[in-house]
Amino acid sequence: MSLTVVGSVAFDALETPFGKRERVLGGAATHFGLSASFFTKVNAVGVVGGDFGDEEWVVFKRHSINTDDVEVVPDGKTFFWSGRYDYDMSTAHTLDTQLNVFETFDPKLSENSKSARLLFLANILPMLQKQVREQMPNAKFVAMDTMNFWISSMKDALIETIKIVDCIIINDAEARQLTDEASIHVAARKIMDIGPKAVVIKRGEYGAVLFTRGGYFVVPAYPLEIVFDPTGAGDTFAGGFMGYLASQDAITDDVLRRAMIYGSVMASFNVEKFGTERVDALDYPEINERFKAFKTMTHFDDIPFEKAANA
Amino acid sequence: MSLTVVGSVAFDALETPFGKRERVLGGAATHFGLSASFFTKVNAVGVVGGDFGDEEWVVFKRHSINTDDVEVVPDGKTFFWSGRYDYDMSTAHTLDTQLNVFETFDPKLSENSKSARLLFLANILPMLQKQVREQMPNAKFVAMDTMNFWISSMKDALIETIKIVDCIIINDAEARQLTDEASIHVAARKIMDIGPKAVVIKRGEYGAVLFTRGGYFVVPAYPLEIVFDPTGAGDTFAGGFMGYLASQDAITDDVLRRAMIYGSVMASFNVEKFGTERVDALDYPEINERFKAFKTMTHFDDIPFEKAANA
Repeated sequence: MSLTVVGSVAFDALETPFGKRERVLGGAATHFGLSASFFTKVNAVGVVGGDFGDEEWVVFKRHSINTDDVEVVPDGKTFFWSGRYDYDMSTAHTLDTQLNVFETFDPKLSENSKSARLLFLANILPMLQKQVREQMPNAKFVAMDTMNFWISSMKDALIETIKIVDCIIINDAEARQLTDEASIHVAARKIMDIGPKAVVIKRGEYGAVLFTRGGYFVVPAYPLEIVFDPTGAGDTFAGGFMGYLASQDAITDDVLRRAMIYGSVMASFNVEKFGTERVDALDYPEINERFKAFKTMTHFDDIPFEKAANA
Repeated sequence: MSLTVVGSVAFDALETPFGKRERVLGGAATHFGLSASFFTKVNAVGVVGGDFGDEEWVVFKRHSINTDDVEVVPDGKTFFWSGRYDYDMSTAHTLDTQLNVFETFDPKLSENSKSARLLFLANILPMLQKQVREQMPNAKFVAMDTMNFWISSMKDALIETIKIVDCIIINDAEARQLTDEASIHVAARKIMDIGPKAVVIKRGEYGAVLFTRGGYFVVPAYPLEIVFDPTGAGDTFAGGFMGYLASQDAITDDVLRRAMIYGSVMASFNVEKFGTERVDALDYPEINERFKAFKTMTHFDDIPFEKAANA
């Protein structure tokens, strides 16, 4: 099954306690696409400016990502984001945002992109997400991201989009803000009441949880002594999750669980270096070794306690 | 194997968003002892005042907890703590603390208590913990708790105690404070360098993690839509953890993992009602059912990803 992602392609300037980069390849569709490309064929839908060059395109090519629907505006500039992380790596401090060509992004899906069986709507204007989703009525599984800004500024439009997706992948603060509920368990139930049959809540250093109508599955984060650069971790998670789903014939509960693990695996690599550097250089043995590590970290023998007669 | 716990026995006044209680049975040794009593024979070492009555003793009796070493000071008053939780149930706001007879607590261990093969040093003055530990040189496995107050006011004495235990069970903020490290992974490594071969870090709604020299194991919290009263959850966790260890012939990595699950199971019951109410009324089928739920929540099939030829 192939997978289409619609979202930002960007340049990022990053500053963390471990160093800085003036300009690295970034954006939600980029991080998602690279991550998903290890599992399935990816079509990226986005927009870049004339400043987007061979050095950037080659990263997409190396992972066989179809960029036919990444529009190039020759006299425009690519979306630029600049951020800083302090020792609390869970909070990004935005220093500068230049939307540039992304400000008027109007996703145009070719027949090829539309024919993908899975669709990921990265964090863009909710109305655009809805419009894209409606162009793919036959998609087998559609997931979306969003952000605090849309929740506070256009919740009604956002809910119209949430109604028509199968899955939402957001962080815990967003889940709470969206539902006005402190408990993520109540929040997830309320979101499923809107429509989605699966809710994935990302919890940074605490991992992620999957809620479905009959199930609940928890994945810890991979234990890293140093998180080098968390930029794109959420999209990389979503890429591993959706990419793995796209690689499987049917989306069962077991497949969703493994998708949660692959999402976590990919996100754990992403944060080890700046931008896309680590995932770009990844190979399958590394991925499968870390997948196994998640099992070692979480599994235990199911031996019920028997009270001894003399206890 | 039997288990001795040294710590507070108290009355608590509790206020949560779901109600209040003027006076309920509380204290670390109480919560720990009740929880552990489901798995092993428990000796409690503590002190109470003349206000401690039949209504309280009957709770210990019901769970066959040996209270011979709970000293009674007839003209003294039992340790009293009053706290309030707001909607963020992870933070207790202390309204009143009256140490009373606990202020001059001098743990006296009978030969029976000393002969236990496992020992838990609940949160008391580090020098007292050390003195008790030294009275049980043949204990097979000794674990301790502590708190932010001792870490900031007598870190050196605390470290002398940490040096001579096998395991420390603390929360994430305490682990960070103790080691001046933001990462719990680095913090746990530093604590193991002091002496303990196992470090358990409790993370509230995110569950708990176990670090050993060669291993890492993560347990999520049981998903509860409402945490009714978190008082004693940490000690109840420790009670399930140590109680299960005491019930087993050998403390292997697999046994430690299951102990983490039983600790989490017991803690999840504790927070469902005020004080000791829920654990006091618990039965084995409930415990084993929730143990199984932890497996359902965390396990997945280890099927490595195989890249399809046509992908």
